[in-house]
Amino acid sequence: MRALASDPAARGLEDDAAVLDFGGENLVLTHDTMIEGVHVLEGQDPADIAWKLVAVNLSDLAAKGAEPIGVLISHMLGTDDHRFVKGLEEVLGEYGVALLGGDTVRGDGPRCWGCTAIGRASHDPVPARSGAKPGDAVYLGGPIGRAMLGYEALRDDTEADDTHYRRPVPQLCLGQDLAPHVSAMMDVSDGLLLDASRIAAASNVTLSLDRNLVLPLAPEGRLEDAMRWGDDYVLLCTGPEGLDERFPLTRIGKVDASGAEPLLLDGSPPEGDIGYTH
Amino acid sequence: MRALASDPAARGLEDDAAVLDFGGENLVLTHDTMIEGVHVLEGQDPADIAWKLVAVNLSDLAAKGAEPIGVLISHMLGTDDHRFVKGLEEVLGEYGVALLGGDTVRGDGPRCWGCTAIGRASHDPVPARSGAKPGDAVYLGGPIGRAMLGYEALRDDTEADDTHYRRPVPQLCLGQDLAPHVSAMMDVSDGLLLDASRIAAASNVTLSLDRNLVLPLAPEGRLEDAMRWGDDYVLLCTGPEGLDERFPLTRIGKVDASGAEPLLLDGSPPEGDIGYTH
Repeated sequence: MRALASDPAARGLEDDAAVLDFGGENLVLTHDTMIEGVHVLEGQDPADIAWKLVAVNLSDLAAKGAEPIGVLISHMLGTDDHRFVKGLEEVLGEYGVALLGGDTVRGDGPRCWGCTAIGRASHDPVPARSGAKPGDAVYLGGPIGRAMLGYEALRDDTEADDTHYRRPVPQLCLGQDLAPHVSAMMDVSDGLLLDASRIAAASNVTLSLDRNLVLPLAPEGRLEDAMRWGDDYVLLCTGPEGLDERFPLTRIGKVDASGAEPLLLDGSPPEGDIGYTH
Repeated sequence: MRALASDPAARGLEDDAAVLDFGGENLVLTHDTMIEGVHVLEGQDPADIAWKLVAVNLSDLAAKGAEPIGVLISHMLGTDDHRFVKGLEEVLGEYGVALLGGDTVRGDGPRCWGCTAIGRASHDPVPARSGAKPGDAVYLGGPIGRAMLGYEALRDDTEADDTHYRRPVPQLCLGQDLAPHVSAMMDVSDGLLLDASRIAAASNVTLSLDRNLVLPLAPEGRLEDAMRWGDDYVLLCTGPEGLDERFPLTRIGKVDASGAEPLLLDGSPPEGDIGYTH
Protein backbone atom coordinates (compact mmCIF):
# COMPACT_ATOMS: atom_id res chain seq x y z
CA MET A 1 0.00 0.00 0.00
CA ARG A 2 3.04 2.24 0.32
CA ALA A 3 2.83 3.28 -3.31
CA LEU A 4 -0.83 4.14 -2.91
CA ALA A 5 -0.43 6.29 0.15
CA SER A 6 -0.19 9.48 -1.84
CA ASP A 7 -2.89 11.21 0.17
CA PRO A 8 -1.20 13.46 2.73
CA ALA A 9 -3.93 12.57 5.21
CA ALA A 10 -2.96 8.93 5.01
CA ARG A 11 -1.58 7.85 8.36
CA GLY A 12 -1.29 4.14 7.82
CA LEU A 13 0.75 2.19 5.32
CA GLU A 14 0.85 -1.44 4.46
CA ASP A 15 0.44 -3.76 7.45
CA ASP A 16 0.35 -0.85 9.87
CA ALA A 17 -2.93 0.04 11.47
CA ALA A 18 -4.46 3.49 11.03
CA VAL A 19 -5.21 5.64 14.07
CA LEU A 20 -7.98 8.23 13.96
CA ASP A 21 -9.30 10.65 16.54
CA PHE A 22 -13.04 9.94 16.63
CA GLY A 23 -15.31 11.37 19.29
CA GLY A 24 -12.27 12.19 21.42
CA GLU A 25 -11.06 8.59 21.42
CA ASN A 26 -8.47 6.84 19.31
CA LEU A 27 -10.07 4.55 16.76
CA VAL A 28 -7.69 1.95 15.32
CA LEU A 29 -8.39 0.35 11.94
CA THR A 30 -6.55 -2.31 10.04
CA HIS A 31 -7.16 -4.43 6.94
CA ASP A 32 -5.52 -7.57 5.62
CA THR A 33 -6.34 -9.60 2.54
CA MET A 34 -5.40 -13.27 2.18
CA ILE A 35 -5.12 -15.16 -1.11
CA GLU A 36 -5.38 -18.91 -1.48
CA GLY A 37 -1.99 -20.34 -2.43
CA VAL A 38 -0.18 -17.21 -1.24
CA HIS A 39 -1.12 -16.52 2.38
CA VAL A 40 -2.71 -19.91 3.05
CA LEU A 41 -2.01 -23.25 1.48
CA GLU A 42 -4.31 -24.49 -1.27
CA GLY A 43 -6.85 -26.86 0.20
CA GLN A 44 -6.33 -25.67 3.75
CA ASP A 45 -9.31 -26.04 6.10
CA PRO A 46 -11.45 -22.89 5.74
CA ALA A 47 -11.99 -22.91 9.52
CA ASP A 48 -8.26 -22.29 9.94
CA ILE A 49 -8.35 -19.66 7.20
CA ALA A 50 -11.11 -17.77 9.00
CA TRP A 51 -9.19 -17.97 12.27
CA LYS A 52 -5.99 -16.69 10.70
CA LEU A 53 -7.79 -13.95 8.75
CA VAL A 54 -9.21 -12.46 11.94
CA ALA A 55 -6.20 -13.22 14.18
CA VAL A 56 -3.65 -11.42 11.99
CA ASN A 57 -5.82 -8.30 12.04
CA LEU A 58 -6.28 -8.53 15.82
CA SER A 59 -2.49 -8.78 16.04
CA ASP A 60 -2.26 -5.41 14.27
CA LEU A 61 -4.61 -4.01 16.91
CA ALA A 62 -2.48 -5.60 19.65
CA ALA A 63 0.55 -3.71 18.35
CA LYS A 64 -1.39 -0.48 18.94
CA GLY A 65 -2.39 -1.53 22.46
CA ALA A 66 -6.00 -1.51 21.25
CA GLU A 67 -8.91 -3.56 22.45
CA PRO A 68 -10.80 -5.05 19.51
CA ILE A 69 -14.41 -4.04 18.89
CA GLY A 70 -15.44 -5.78 15.71
CA VAL A 71 -14.58 -6.98 12.23
CA LEU A 72 -15.97 -6.75 8.73
CA ILE A 73 -15.33 -9.90 6.73
CA SER A 74 -15.15 -10.42 2.98
CA HIS A 75 -15.60 -14.05 2.02
CA MET A 76 -15.47 -15.63 -1.42
CA LEU A 77 -18.03 -18.41 -1.41
CA GLY A 78 -16.92 -22.00 -2.08
CA THR A 79 -18.02 -25.53 -1.40
CA ASP A 80 -17.11 -25.59 2.27
CA ASP A 81 -18.48 -22.34 3.62
CA HIS A 82 -19.78 -23.98 6.79
CA ARG A 83 -16.18 -24.61 7.83
CA PHE A 84 -15.35 -20.95 7.29
CA VAL A 85 -18.33 -19.95 9.43
CA LYS A 86 -17.21 -22.42 12.11
CA GLY A 87 -13.69 -20.98 12.28
CA LEU A 88 -15.09 -17.47 12.27
CA GLU A 89 -17.34 -18.24 15.21
CA GLU A 90 -14.41 -19.77 17.08
CA VAL A 91 -12.04 -16.84 16.66
CA LEU A 92 -14.70 -14.21 17.31
CA GLY A 93 -15.84 -16.07 20.41
CA GLU A 94 -12.28 -16.57 21.66
CA TYR A 95 -11.53 -12.84 21.58
CA GLY A 96 -15.02 -11.46 22.23
CA VAL A 97 -15.16 -9.65 18.91
CA ALA A 98 -18.38 -8.75 17.05
CA LEU A 99 -19.03 -9.49 13.40
CA LEU A 100 -20.19 -6.08 12.20
CA GLY A 101 -20.79 -6.88 8.55
CA GLY A 102 -18.93 -7.45 5.34
CA ASP A 103 -19.52 -8.93 1.96
CA THR A 104 -19.82 -12.32 0.31
CA VAL A 105 -18.79 -12.67 -3.33
CA ARG A 106 -18.55 -15.35 -5.96
CA GLY A 107 -15.62 -15.76 -8.30
CA ASP A 108 -13.50 -18.22 -10.18
CA GLY A 109 -9.85 -18.93 -9.57
CA PRO A 110 -7.97 -18.74 -6.28
CA ARG A 111 -10.17 -17.57 -3.45
CA CYS A 112 -9.58 -14.36 -1.55
CA TRP A 113 -10.64 -13.18 1.85
CA GLY A 114 -10.50 -9.81 3.54
CA CYS A 115 -10.86 -8.60 7.09
CA THR A 116 -11.10 -5.11 8.48
CA ALA A 117 -10.75 -4.95 12.26
CA ILE A 118 -11.53 -1.94 14.38
CA GLY A 119 -10.51 -1.29 17.94
CA ARG A 120 -10.23 1.31 20.64
CA ALA A 121 -6.75 2.35 21.74
CA SER A 122 -6.23 1.83 25.45
CA HIS A 123 -3.46 4.40 25.80
CA ASP A 124 -2.74 7.83 24.36
CA PRO A 125 -0.37 8.34 22.61
CA VAL A 126 -0.94 5.17 20.61
CA PRO A 127 2.28 3.16 20.09
CA ALA A 128 3.74 3.56 16.61
CA ARG A 129 6.74 2.24 14.74
CA SER A 130 8.39 5.62 14.82
CA GLY A 131 9.21 6.26 18.46
CA ALA A 132 12.35 4.17 19.09
CA LYS A 133 15.17 6.22 20.64
CA PRO A 134 18.89 5.58 21.05
CA GLY A 135 19.47 3.97 24.42
CA ASP A 136 16.24 1.95 24.33
CA ALA A 137 16.32 -1.82 24.53
CA VAL A 138 14.66 -4.05 21.91
CA TYR A 139 12.24 -6.72 23.13
CA LEU A 140 10.36 -9.63 21.64
CA GLY A 141 7.07 -10.91 23.08
CA GLY A 142 7.58 -14.61 22.39
CA PRO A 143 9.23 -17.33 20.32
CA ILE A 144 9.80 -17.02 16.59
CA GLY A 145 9.92 -19.77 13.98
CA ARG A 146 6.98 -21.76 15.31
CA ALA A 147 4.80 -20.69 12.36
CA MET A 148 7.62 -21.77 10.03
CA LEU A 149 7.69 -25.23 11.61
CA GLY A 150 3.90 -25.39 11.41
CA TYR A 151 3.93 -24.42 7.74
CA GLU A 152 6.49 -27.12 6.98
CA ALA A 153 4.46 -29.71 8.92
CA LEU A 154 1.27 -28.82 7.06
CA ARG A 155 2.98 -28.62 3.65
CA ASP A 156 4.77 -31.93 4.12
CA ASP A 157 1.88 -33.58 5.97
CA THR A 158 4.06 -34.68 8.89
CA GLU A 159 3.08 -35.37 12.50
CA ALA A 160 4.75 -32.20 13.77
CA ASP A 161 2.64 -29.50 15.39
CA ASP A 162 1.18 -27.12 12.81
CA THR A 163 -1.00 -25.13 15.20
CA HIS A 164 1.08 -21.97 15.19
CA TYR A 165 0.83 -21.65 11.42
CA ARG A 166 -2.88 -22.48 11.25
CA ARG A 167 -4.09 -20.61 14.32
CA PRO A 168 -1.87 -17.70 15.30
CA VAL A 169 -2.57 -16.06 18.66
CA PRO A 170 -2.67 -12.25 18.77
CA GLN A 171 -1.00 -10.82 21.88
CA LEU A 172 -3.89 -8.50 22.73
CA CYS A 173 -3.45 -8.36 26.52
CA LEU A 174 0.30 -7.93 26.29
CA GLY A 175 -0.14 -5.11 23.77
CA GLN A 176 -2.47 -3.22 26.09
CA ASP A 177 -0.16 -3.81 29.07
CA LEU A 178 2.85 -2.56 27.13
CA ALA A 179 1.27 0.46 25.42
CA PRO A 180 2.05 2.99 28.20
CA HIS A 181 5.68 1.85 28.46
CA VAL A 182 7.04 1.25 24.95
CA SER A 183 8.64 3.80 22.63
CA ALA A 184 7.76 1.80 19.47
CA MET A 185 5.80 -1.38 18.83
CA MET A 186 4.65 -3.62 15.98
CA ASP A 187 3.88 -7.29 15.47
CA VAL A 188 6.24 -9.68 13.70
CA SER A 189 4.24 -10.65 10.63
CA ASP A 190 6.90 -10.63 7.91
CA GLY A 191 9.94 -11.82 9.88
CA LEU A 192 11.92 -10.44 12.81
CA LEU A 193 14.70 -8.90 10.72
CA LEU A 194 12.42 -7.22 8.19
CA ASP A 195 10.04 -5.93 10.82
CA ALA A 196 12.88 -4.70 13.03
CA SER A 197 14.28 -2.82 10.03
CA ARG A 198 10.85 -1.17 9.64
CA ILE A 199 10.96 0.18 13.18
CA ALA A 200 14.50 1.39 12.50
CA ALA A 201 13.45 3.16 9.29
CA ALA A 202 10.34 4.72 10.84
CA SER A 203 12.28 5.89 13.90
CA ASN A 204 15.44 6.90 12.03
CA VAL A 205 17.64 4.79 14.31
CA THR A 206 19.67 1.60 14.06
CA LEU A 207 18.43 -1.55 15.77
CA SER A 208 21.35 -3.71 16.94
CA LEU A 209 20.27 -7.27 17.62
CA ASP A 210 22.30 -10.00 19.26
CA ARG A 211 22.03 -13.53 17.83
CA ASN A 212 22.77 -15.06 21.23
CA LEU A 213 19.81 -13.29 22.76
CA VAL A 214 17.45 -14.38 19.95
CA LEU A 215 18.81 -17.94 19.85
CA PRO A 216 16.71 -19.35 22.73
CA LEU A 217 13.55 -18.05 21.03
CA ALA A 218 14.14 -19.99 17.80
CA PRO A 219 13.79 -23.71 17.05
CA GLU A 220 17.04 -25.64 17.40
CA GLY A 221 19.34 -25.19 14.43
CA ARG A 222 16.92 -22.87 12.64
CA LEU A 223 17.87 -19.45 14.01
CA GLU A 224 18.71 -17.86 10.66
CA ASP A 225 15.50 -19.12 9.01
CA ALA A 226 13.37 -18.23 12.02
CA MET A 227 14.57 -14.62 11.98
CA ARG A 228 13.50 -14.35 8.33
CA TRP A 229 10.16 -16.14 8.50
CA GLY A 230 6.90 -14.37 9.22
CA ASP A 231 3.52 -15.34 10.60
CA ASP A 232 4.57 -15.57 14.25
CA TYR A 233 2.56 -12.51 15.34
CA VAL A 234 4.55 -11.90 18.49
CA LEU A 235 5.07 -8.29 19.55
CA LEU A 236 8.33 -6.51 18.83
CA CYS A 237 8.93 -3.34 20.82
CA THR A 238 11.48 -0.86 22.06
CA GLY A 239 11.53 0.86 25.41
CA PRO A 240 13.55 1.51 28.55
CA GLU A 241 15.86 -1.14 29.99
CA GLY A 242 14.14 -3.43 32.48
CA LEU A 243 10.79 -3.91 30.74
CA ASP A 244 11.62 -7.62 30.53
CA GLU A 245 11.54 -7.77 34.33
CA ARG A 246 7.96 -6.48 34.45
CA PHE A 247 6.45 -8.13 31.37
CA PRO A 248 6.86 -11.46 29.54
CA LEU A 249 9.45 -10.06 27.12
CA THR A 250 12.88 -11.15 26.02
CA ARG A 251 15.54 -8.49 25.50
CA ILE A 252 17.17 -9.13 22.10
CA GLY A 253 19.19 -5.99 21.43
CA LYS A 254 19.40 -2.24 21.71
CA VAL A 255 18.66 0.94 19.79
CA ASP A 256 21.59 3.00 18.51
CA ALA A 257 21.70 6.38 16.81
CA SER A 258 21.10 6.14 13.10
CA GLY A 259 24.10 4.69 11.34
CA ALA A 260 24.82 3.54 7.81
CA GLU A 261 22.60 0.49 8.31
CA PRO A 262 19.10 0.37 9.82
CA LEU A 263 19.71 -3.09 11.24
CA LEU A 264 22.77 -4.80 12.68
CA LEU A 265 23.07 -8.41 13.74
CA ASP A 266 26.07 -8.96 16.01
CA GLY A 267 27.41 -5.70 14.61
CA SER A 268 27.03 -6.48 10.89
CA PRO A 269 24.18 -6.03 8.40
CA PRO A 270 22.24 -9.30 8.01
CA GLU A 271 23.09 -11.26 4.87
CA GLY A 272 20.70 -12.08 2.04
CA ASP A 273 16.94 -11.59 2.08
CA ILE A 274 15.84 -10.47 5.49
CA GLY A 275 12.19 -11.42 5.40
CA TYR A 276 8.99 -12.22 3.66
CA THR A 277 7.44 -9.63 1.41
CA HIS A 278 3.96 -10.28 0.08
CA MET B 1 -22.89 -12.15 4.75
CA ARG B 2 -26.37 -12.98 6.06
CA ALA B 3 -25.40 -16.59 6.74
CA LEU B 4 -22.31 -15.46 8.62
CA ALA B 5 -24.06 -13.00 10.88
CA SER B 6 -24.48 -15.47 13.70
CA ASP B 7 -22.96 -13.15 16.26
CA PRO B 8 -25.78 -11.47 18.21
CA ALA B 9 -23.72 -8.29 18.33
CA ALA B 10 -23.70 -8.12 14.55
CA ARG B 11 -25.66 -5.08 13.46
CA GLY B 12 -24.89 -5.07 9.78
CA LEU B 13 -25.60 -7.64 7.11
CA GLU B 14 -24.54 -7.87 3.53
CA ASP B 15 -24.42 -4.52 1.76
CA ASP B 16 -25.74 -2.68 4.79
CA ALA B 17 -23.36 -0.49 6.71
CA ALA B 18 -22.67 -1.11 10.40
CA VAL B 19 -23.34 1.62 12.93
CA LEU B 20 -21.39 1.77 16.19
CA ASP B 21 -21.45 4.15 19.11
CA PHE B 22 -17.83 5.26 19.48
CA GLY B 23 -16.83 8.11 21.75
CA GLY B 24 -20.44 9.27 21.89
CA GLU B 25 -20.69 9.58 18.10
CA ASN B 26 -22.08 7.23 15.51
CA LEU B 27 -19.32 5.58 13.51
CA VAL B 28 -20.49 4.05 10.23
CA LEU B 29 -18.50 1.25 8.58
CA THR B 30 -19.03 -0.57 5.33
CA HIS B 31 -17.08 -3.02 3.19
CA ASP B 32 -17.47 -4.16 -0.41
CA THR B 33 -15.34 -6.55 -2.41
CA MET B 34 -15.21 -6.52 -6.22
CA ILE B 35 -14.09 -9.40 -8.40
CA GLU B 36 -12.83 -9.07 -11.96
CA GLY B 37 -15.36 -10.54 -14.35
CA VAL B 38 -18.14 -10.38 -11.77
CA HIS B 39 -18.45 -6.81 -10.50
CA VAL B 40 -16.35 -5.21 -13.21
CA LEU B 41 -15.73 -6.33 -16.76
CA GLU B 42 -12.53 -8.17 -17.55
CA GLY B 43 -10.00 -5.75 -18.96
CA GLN B 44 -11.79 -2.67 -17.63
CA ASP B 45 -9.58 0.36 -16.93
CA PRO B 46 -8.26 0.00 -13.35
CA ALA B 47 -8.81 3.74 -12.87
CA ASP B 48 -12.55 3.13 -13.27
CA ILE B 49 -12.34 0.09 -11.00
CA ALA B 50 -10.74 2.16 -8.25
CA TRP B 51 -13.41 4.85 -8.67
CA LYS B 52 -16.24 2.34 -8.48
CA LEU B 53 -14.68 0.46 -5.56
CA VAL B 54 -14.63 3.61 -3.44
CA ALA B 55 -17.87 5.13 -4.78
CA VAL B 56 -20.06 2.12 -3.97
CA ASN B 57 -18.82 2.18 -0.40
CA LEU B 58 -19.40 5.93 -0.14
CA SER B 59 -22.91 5.25 -1.41
CA ASP B 60 -23.46 2.94 1.58
CA LEU B 61 -22.36 5.80 3.82
CA ALA B 62 -24.72 8.15 1.97
CA ALA B 63 -27.63 5.86 2.81
CA LYS B 64 -26.78 6.35 6.49
CA GLY B 65 -26.58 10.12 6.12
CA ALA B 66 -22.91 9.86 7.02
CA GLU B 67 -20.02 12.08 5.99
CA PRO B 68 -17.08 9.98 4.82
CA ILE B 69 -13.80 10.10 6.73
CA GLY B 70 -11.53 7.61 5.06
CA VAL B 71 -11.05 4.29 3.34
CA LEU B 72 -8.84 1.23 3.60
CA ILE B 73 -8.10 -0.31 0.23
CA SER B 74 -7.09 -3.83 -0.67
CA HIS B 75 -5.52 -4.03 -4.11
CA MET B 76 -4.29 -7.06 -6.00
CA LEU B 77 -1.24 -5.97 -7.92
CA GLY B 78 -1.20 -6.24 -11.71
CA THR B 79 0.48 -4.75 -14.72
CA ASP B 80 -1.40 -1.45 -14.68
CA ASP B 81 -1.28 -0.37 -11.06
CA HIS B 82 -0.56 3.24 -11.97
CA ARG B 83 -4.05 3.44 -13.50
CA PHE B 84 -5.54 2.11 -10.27
CA VAL B 85 -3.63 4.71 -8.26
CA LYS B 86 -4.82 7.42 -10.67
CA GLY B 87 -8.48 6.48 -10.27
CA LEU B 88 -8.05 6.21 -6.53
CA GLU B 89 -6.60 9.70 -6.35
CA GLU B 90 -9.47 11.01 -8.46
CA VAL B 91 -12.26 9.55 -6.36
CA LEU B 92 -10.61 10.37 -3.04
CA GLY B 93 -9.98 13.92 -4.20
CA GLU B 94 -13.51 14.33 -5.55
CA TYR B 95 -15.10 13.45 -2.21
CA GLY B 96 -12.38 14.67 0.15
CA VAL B 97 -11.74 11.24 1.61
CA ALA B 98 -8.46 10.11 3.18
CA LEU B 99 -6.64 6.91 2.29
CA LEU B 100 -6.07 5.47 5.76
CA GLY B 101 -4.29 2.27 4.80
CA GLY B 102 -4.96 -1.17 3.46
CA ASP B 103 -3.12 -3.99 1.87
CA THR B 104 -1.55 -4.94 -1.45
CA VAL B 105 -1.40 -8.58 -2.41
CA ARG B 106 -0.21 -10.72 -5.30
CA GLY B 107 -2.17 -13.58 -6.73
CA ASP B 108 -3.00 -15.50 -9.87
CA GLY B 109 -6.40 -15.68 -11.50
CA PRO B 110 -9.13 -13.02 -11.53
CA ARG B 111 -8.15 -9.98 -9.53
CA CYS B 112 -10.04 -8.86 -6.45
CA TRP B 113 -10.28 -5.54 -4.69
CA GLY B 114 -11.71 -4.54 -1.35
CA CYS B 115 -12.67 -1.26 0.25
CA THR B 116 -13.70 -0.47 3.79
CA ALA B 117 -15.12 3.04 4.21
CA ILE B 118 -15.72 4.75 7.51
CA GLY B 119 -17.83 7.79 8.17
CA ARG B 120 -19.48 9.85 10.85
CA ALA B 121 -23.28 9.88 10.97
CA SER B 122 -24.69 13.39 10.67
CA HIS B 123 -27.98 12.59 12.39
CA ASP B 124 -29.08 10.45 15.34
CA PRO B 125 -30.91 8.12 14.98
CA VAL B 126 -29.04 6.90 11.93
CA PRO B 127 -31.40 5.92 9.06
CA ALA B 128 -31.86 2.19 8.70
CA ARG B 129 -33.79 -0.13 6.41
CA SER B 130 -36.16 -1.03 9.20
CA GLY B 131 -38.10 2.14 9.92
CA ALA B 132 -40.69 2.31 7.11
CA LYS B 133 -44.24 2.76 8.45
CA PRO B 134 -47.67 2.33 6.83
CA GLY B 135 -48.78 5.68 5.46
CA ASP B 136 -45.25 6.72 4.43
CA ALA B 137 -44.48 7.53 0.82
CA VAL B 138 -41.65 5.82 -1.11
CA TYR B 139 -39.08 8.03 -2.87
CA LEU B 140 -36.21 7.56 -5.28
CA GLY B 141 -33.26 9.96 -5.43
CA GLY B 142 -32.66 9.81 -9.18
CA PRO B 143 -32.94 7.88 -12.43
CA ILE B 144 -32.49 4.12 -12.64
CA GLY B 145 -31.19 2.07 -15.56
CA ARG B 146 -28.35 4.40 -16.49
CA ALA B 147 -25.76 1.94 -15.16
CA MET B 148 -27.45 -0.81 -17.21
CA LEU B 149 -27.11 1.27 -20.37
CA GLY B 150 -23.51 2.05 -19.47
CA TYR B 151 -22.73 -1.62 -18.92
CA GLU B 152 -24.22 -2.53 -22.28
CA ALA B 153 -22.27 0.24 -23.99
CA LEU B 154 -19.01 -0.89 -22.42
CA ARG B 155 -19.66 -4.58 -23.03
CA ASP B 156 -20.68 -4.03 -26.67
CA ASP B 157 -18.11 -1.29 -27.25
CA THR B 158 -20.68 1.17 -28.65
CA GLU B 159 -20.62 4.94 -28.69
CA ALA B 160 -23.30 5.23 -25.99
CA ASP B 161 -22.45 6.85 -22.67
CA ASP B 162 -20.95 4.34 -20.24
CA THR B 163 -20.09 6.83 -17.50
CA HIS B 164 -22.79 5.78 -15.06
CA TYR B 165 -21.56 2.20 -15.04
CA ARG B 166 -17.88 3.09 -14.84
CA ARG B 167 -18.05 5.99 -12.42
CA PRO B 168 -21.11 5.91 -10.15
CA VAL B 169 -21.81 9.00 -8.09
CA PRO B 170 -22.67 8.49 -4.41
CA GLN B 171 -25.46 10.82 -3.20
CA LEU B 172 -23.58 11.94 -0.11
CA CYS B 173 -25.09 15.42 0.28
CA LEU B 174 -28.62 14.21 -0.40
CA GLY B 175 -28.19 11.44 2.19
CA GLN B 176 -27.12 13.90 4.87
CA ASP B 177 -29.97 16.27 3.94
CA LEU B 178 -32.52 13.47 4.11
CA ALA B 179 -31.30 11.73 7.28
CA PRO B 180 -33.42 13.76 9.73
CA HIS B 181 -36.58 13.29 7.65
CA VAL B 182 -36.72 9.71 6.38
CA SER B 183 -38.16 6.66 8.14
CA ALA B 184 -35.98 4.21 6.18
CA MET B 185 -33.19 4.63 3.62
CA MET B 186 -30.80 2.56 1.52
CA ASP B 187 -29.02 2.89 -1.80
CA VAL B 188 -30.13 1.02 -4.93
CA SER B 189 -27.17 -1.26 -5.57
CA ASP B 190 -28.88 -4.51 -6.57
CA GLY B 191 -31.98 -3.20 -8.38
CA LEU B 192 -34.99 -1.11 -7.33
CA LEU B 193 -37.34 -4.05 -6.83
CA LEU B 194 -34.92 -6.19 -4.83
CA ASP B 195 -33.76 -3.31 -2.68
CA ALA B 196 -37.34 -2.10 -2.09
CA SER B 197 -38.23 -5.61 -0.96
CA ARG B 198 -35.33 -5.44 1.53
CA ILE B 199 -36.77 -2.30 3.13
CA ALA B 200 -40.16 -4.03 3.24
CA ALA B 201 -38.71 -7.12 4.91
CA ALA B 202 -36.63 -5.16 7.42
CA SER B 203 -39.59 -2.91 8.28
CA ASN B 204 -42.25 -5.65 8.17
CA VAL B 205 -44.41 -3.65 5.77
CA THR B 206 -45.46 -3.87 2.14
CA LEU B 207 -44.02 -1.40 -0.35
CA SER B 208 -46.53 -0.63 -3.13
CA LEU B 209 -44.84 0.87 -6.16
CA ASP B 210 -46.54 2.39 -9.18
CA ARG B 211 -45.03 1.70 -12.62
CA ASN B 212 -46.32 5.02 -13.97
CA LEU B 213 -44.42 6.90 -11.29
CA VAL B 214 -41.17 4.99 -11.94
CA LEU B 215 -41.55 5.16 -15.74
CA PRO B 216 -40.06 8.66 -16.22
CA LEU B 217 -36.98 7.60 -14.25
CA ALA B 218 -36.14 4.69 -16.58
CA PRO B 219 -34.67 4.69 -20.10
CA GLU B 220 -37.32 4.54 -22.83
CA GLY B 221 -38.74 1.06 -23.31
CA ARG B 222 -36.53 -0.42 -20.59
CA LEU B 223 -38.65 0.07 -17.47
CA GLU B 224 -38.85 -3.61 -16.51
CA ASP B 225 -35.12 -4.18 -16.97
CA ALA B 226 -34.21 -0.94 -15.24
CA MET B 227 -36.19 -1.86 -12.13
CA ARG B 228 -34.22 -5.12 -11.92
CA TRP B 229 -30.74 -3.83 -12.69
CA GLY B 230 -28.34 -2.64 -10.01
CA ASP B 231 -25.36 -0.33 -9.86
CA ASP B 232 -27.32 2.95 -10.03
CA TYR B 233 -26.51 3.97 -6.44
CA VAL B 234 -29.39 6.38 -6.11
CA LEU B 235 -31.05 6.65 -2.71
CA LEU B 236 -34.31 4.86 -1.99
CA CYS B 237 -36.19 6.07 1.06
CA THR B 238 -39.51 6.21 2.84
CA GLY B 239 -40.94 9.12 4.79
CA PRO B 240 -43.85 11.51 5.15
CA GLU B 241 -45.75 12.74 2.12
CA GLY B 242 -44.30 15.92 0.65
CA LEU B 243 -40.58 15.16 0.96
CA ASP B 244 -40.40 15.38 -2.83
CA GLU B 245 -41.34 19.06 -2.59
CA ARG B 246 -38.39 19.83 -0.35
CA PHE B 247 -35.71 17.56 -1.81
CA PRO B 248 -34.75 16.26 -5.27
CA LEU B 249 -36.80 13.08 -4.90
CA THR B 250 -39.44 11.36 -7.01
CA ARG B 251 -42.39 9.76 -5.25
CA ILE B 252 -42.78 6.23 -6.64
CA GLY B 253 -45.25 4.57 -4.27
CA LYS B 254 -46.43 4.15 -0.73
CA VAL B 255 -45.96 1.96 2.33
CA ASP B 256 -48.83 -0.31 3.37
CA ALA B 257 -49.29 -2.52 6.39
CA SER B 258 -47.60 -5.88 5.97
CA GLY B 259 -49.54 -8.08 3.61
CA ALA B 260 -48.92 -11.41 1.96
CA GLU B 261 -46.27 -9.89 -0.30
CA PRO B 262 -43.43 -7.55 0.71
CA LEU B 263 -43.55 -5.78 -2.63
CA LEU B 264 -46.38 -4.87 -4.98
CA LEU B 265 -46.09 -3.32 -8.42
CA ASP B 266 -49.38 -1.82 -9.58
CA GLY B 267 -51.04 -4.02 -6.97
CA SER B 268 -49.42 -7.34 -7.94
CA PRO B 269 -46.19 -9.09 -6.96
CA PRO B 270 -43.49 -8.44 -9.58
CA GLU B 271 -42.90 -11.31 -11.97
CA GLY B 272 -39.69 -13.30 -12.36
CA ASP B 273 -36.34 -12.42 -10.83
CA ILE B 274 -36.55 -9.07 -9.12
CA GLY B 275 -32.91 -8.10 -9.03
CA TYR B 276 -29.25 -8.86 -9.06
CA THR B 277 -27.82 -11.03 -6.34
CA HIS B 278 -24.04 -11.35 -6.12
